[in-house]
Amino acid sequence: MSNPAVERSCPQLDVRDLHDSLNSPVSASMNFLNEVAQEYPDAVSFAAGRPFEGYFDLDDVHRYLDLYRRYLSERFDGDEAQVRRTVLQYGRTKGVIHELVAAHLAVDEGITVDAESIVVTVGCQEALYLTLRALRATPEDVLLAVSPCYVGVHGAAQLVDMPLLPVEESSTGVDLDDLAAVVHRARAEGLRPRALYLVPDFANPTGVRMSEEERLRTLRAASELGLLVLEDNPYGLLGDDGPPTMKALDTEGRVVYLGSFAKTGLPGARVGYAVADQRVIDARGGTGLLADELAKIKSMTTVNTSPIAQAVIAGKLLENGNSLRAANTRERETYRGNLRLMLDGLAARFGDGQVPGVSWNTPGGGFFLLLTVPFAASDELLEFSAGKHQVLWTPLHHFYAGSEPRNVMRLSFSHLLPAEIDEGLDRLAGFVREQTEAP
Amino acid sequence: MSNPAVERSCPQLDVRDLHDSLNSPVSASMNFLNEVAQEYPDAVSFAAGRPFEGYFDLDDVHRYLDLYRRYLSERFDGDEAQVRRTVLQYGRTKGVIHELVAAHLAVDEGITVDAESIVVTVGCQEALYLTLRALRATPEDVLLAVSPCYVGVHGAAQLVDMPLLPVEESSTGVDLDDLAAVVHRARAEGLRPRALYLVPDFANPTGVRMSEEERLRTLRAASELGLLVLEDNPYGLLGDDGPPTMKALDTEGRVVYLGSFAKTGLPGARVGYAVADQRVIDARGGTGLLADELAKIKSMTTVNTSPIAQAVIAGKLLENGNSLRAANTRERETYRGNLRLMLDGLAARFGDGQVPGVSWNTPGGGFFLLLTVPFAASDELLEFSAGKHQVLWTPLHHFYAGSEPRNVMRLSFSHLLPAEIDEGLDRLAGFVREQTEAP
Repeated sequence: MSNPAVERSCPQLDVRDLHDSLNSPVSASMNFLNEVAQEYPDAVSFAAGRPFEGYFDLDDVHRYLDLYRRYLSERFDGDEAQVRRTVLQYGRTKGVIHELVAAHLAVDEGITVDAESIVVTVGCQEALYLTLRALRATPEDVLLAVSPCYVGVHGAAQLVDMPLLPVEESSTGVDLDDLAAVVHRARAEGLRPRALYLVPDFANPTGVRMSEEERLRTLRAASELGLLVLEDNPYGLLGDDGPPTMKALDTEGRVVYLGSFAKTGLPGARVGYAVADQRVIDARGGTGLLADELAKIKSMTTVNTSPIAQAVIAGKLLENGNSLRAANTRERETYRGNLRLMLDGLAARFGDGQVPGVSWNTPGGGFFLLLTVPFAASDELLEFSAGKHQVLWTPLHHFYAGSEPRNVMRLSFSHLLPAEIDEGLDRLAGFVREQTEAP
Repeated sequence: MSNPAVERSCPQLDVRDLHDSLNSPVSASMNFLNEVAQEYPDAVSFAAGRPFEGYFDLDDVHRYLDLYRRYLSERFDGDEAQVRRTVLQYGRTKGVIHELVAAHLAVDEGITVDAESIVVTVGCQEALYLTLRALRATPEDVLLAVSPCYVGVHGAAQLVDMPLLPVEESSTGVDLDDLAAVVHRARAEGLRPRALYLVPDFANPTGVRMSEEERLRTLRAASELGLLVLEDNPYGLLGDDGPPTMKALDTEGRVVYLGSFAKTGLPGARVGYAVADQRVIDARGGTGLLADELAKIKSMTTVNTSPIAQAVIAGKLLENGNSLRAANTRERETYRGNLRLMLDGLAARFGDGQVPGVSWNTPGGGFFLLLTVPFAASDELLEFSAGKHQVLWTPLHHFYAGSEPRNVMRLSFSHLLPAEIDEGLDRLAGFVREQTEAP
């Protein structure tokens, strides 16, 4: 595979001599799930949380680039050298499409922010990473997150050696009593809780969407507890109209908003952003924006987000009057249809107690739902399910950064065609029945 | 500027409560240099280390995308859904153009590696960040770097809380006596030197190119001292043919090669890569590639590099038979011409002792040279030079992560037109004469 001389002479590295994040259950989780998916490419996958790709079109990319080119040309009064420089040269650390992103937030999310408070990032994951890197100043700094939660949050926190304290979810959002208890306990131990991470719209993995009242209550709790709120919102625009984002409801500047264009724009552009309009006092007593601190970290991580990739997203925004809600009319219908097929399909196969101990939740949107089964949905059973039944799902314990299997699996349905959902549910039902009836 | 409610109610953050990298001289440096450049947009800039943009063409992007599309279509036997998925969906963490990158390394650099040992990254900076994040396991882990060195190395090391120990440069490369002394001293203090960072081809800021003999000596020293070598090579292909890369000379698998397409491809794509074919023993006693460990860290930082951006670079590779040396014939001529103009221009203005105490080095290529002046080239003088003389340069102390000014400035000439070089040198000469003659 590699140069034989290498294997002869080089002192081997030991993973235990590499950073702890590479020795963690989270890293092992992500690896395991990837490997299973690769090993069974023909299985129906209720595991991959990818956007639907049926409407992907490479011609869109060319058109979007041209639209942004014309937009820049007008903006620069026909100075084509300036247009070329903007798209092809090293660019502004905070990004070049910040004004379009600000316009989009105003149109679609009711969020009014100065474009200077936006940092355009390499996907939402980098926005999260930059925010956590900034907030983790000492070993006492800790992050709170509603648990179960997106595995990338565990990952980013581990990269910056920041412990993640889980907060109980409630059926409607965050268990605020538990939030207060976790914060007080942490402080009593000398820790410094910095922020609460959550996904108020169709959380991953639970699918829960918080009501406006619940959002306001959570903001008040964060205010009383002195926490920043990290609001991650990849799915909101892909569901029916809902309550305002927490950032729109925030009157205190307490919310750092983490945005993604992976689901509403194009995953292949890898463009996301942070809105960080918090004020930061600098060493000389002046104040700047948290966005500018995040930009400094970005300059040491990725320097800037590809302006070519940004141009693709900009073109999609321009084509749709800055509204990604408008741009995703077909997609929204598809996701709504897939959710309906899932719920109807589960009812047909498991409803009315056909298989004792099987139940599921009914989210109002998003990419996921949870299926509870009368057995531990372990990694071993996933491999068995993939191999024998050719169907993949995600064991829920991966979202707890733990290894103790639970009786719940996450089912993703965003990327599937109706026939695949139907076939996948047949296979899943076969697997679940077999496990339930097993001695 | 921002929502007034924000300023009223939110507890302000203090930069001293944010990560140390934001309080460092390096961060202040990068910020200061950016601010000066923004404040004097009409000054001639010998400060910006950007590639020449005279050949930039947005039509290239469209053509490159189409070339890669056709290449994928052939490779996937006309399966257009698979083509679209590769370019537009979430992608493989280690990248999708790894085989083309491997082919390029074989054609242009004499480096033969398995494509699986390549991680395609968001610019070379991310490759460096991932490598340092992996290697920094404990507070005892330290990085060595030839000093003065590229400011982004200081930045990446600070992000992962990894001290950087400077090693003296020699006129031909690394001072190997000092290297050994630094390593032994560090070990005596309980530290663990992990790797030596260097740029063997036209180093930033010194412009030094190491000979083959020097490279072999340095590899032997690294071997004896048990260090990995991080070879960063952004400029090699833009100069005359030179000695082999250290990675090509490496028989022990000791070199992690950090590659950039920013100068040879397109900066706006933000695509770079790491070649990490070192073996890593895992927790179960098996072995994997260091590349796969870097990929795990990448999955928590940026998830994957935009495949659209990768496609642009792939198209440029395909158009040029995977040779970026061939692709950059015009550019190489431009850089060579600019270097000649700089050297001739400096000789005309400062030669033969016209201004006592002024001298400069004569690199054989690259983007930079060093000008020694008979006064401390401080940040204050840079601001004065920018304001009064409308000419920018980089004070050398920024490459030492220090704040004590030195009598040396870095002059970058890569992005300038001949007339700009001429005008800029006139202005610079005016400034230097004024300072030299000042009481």
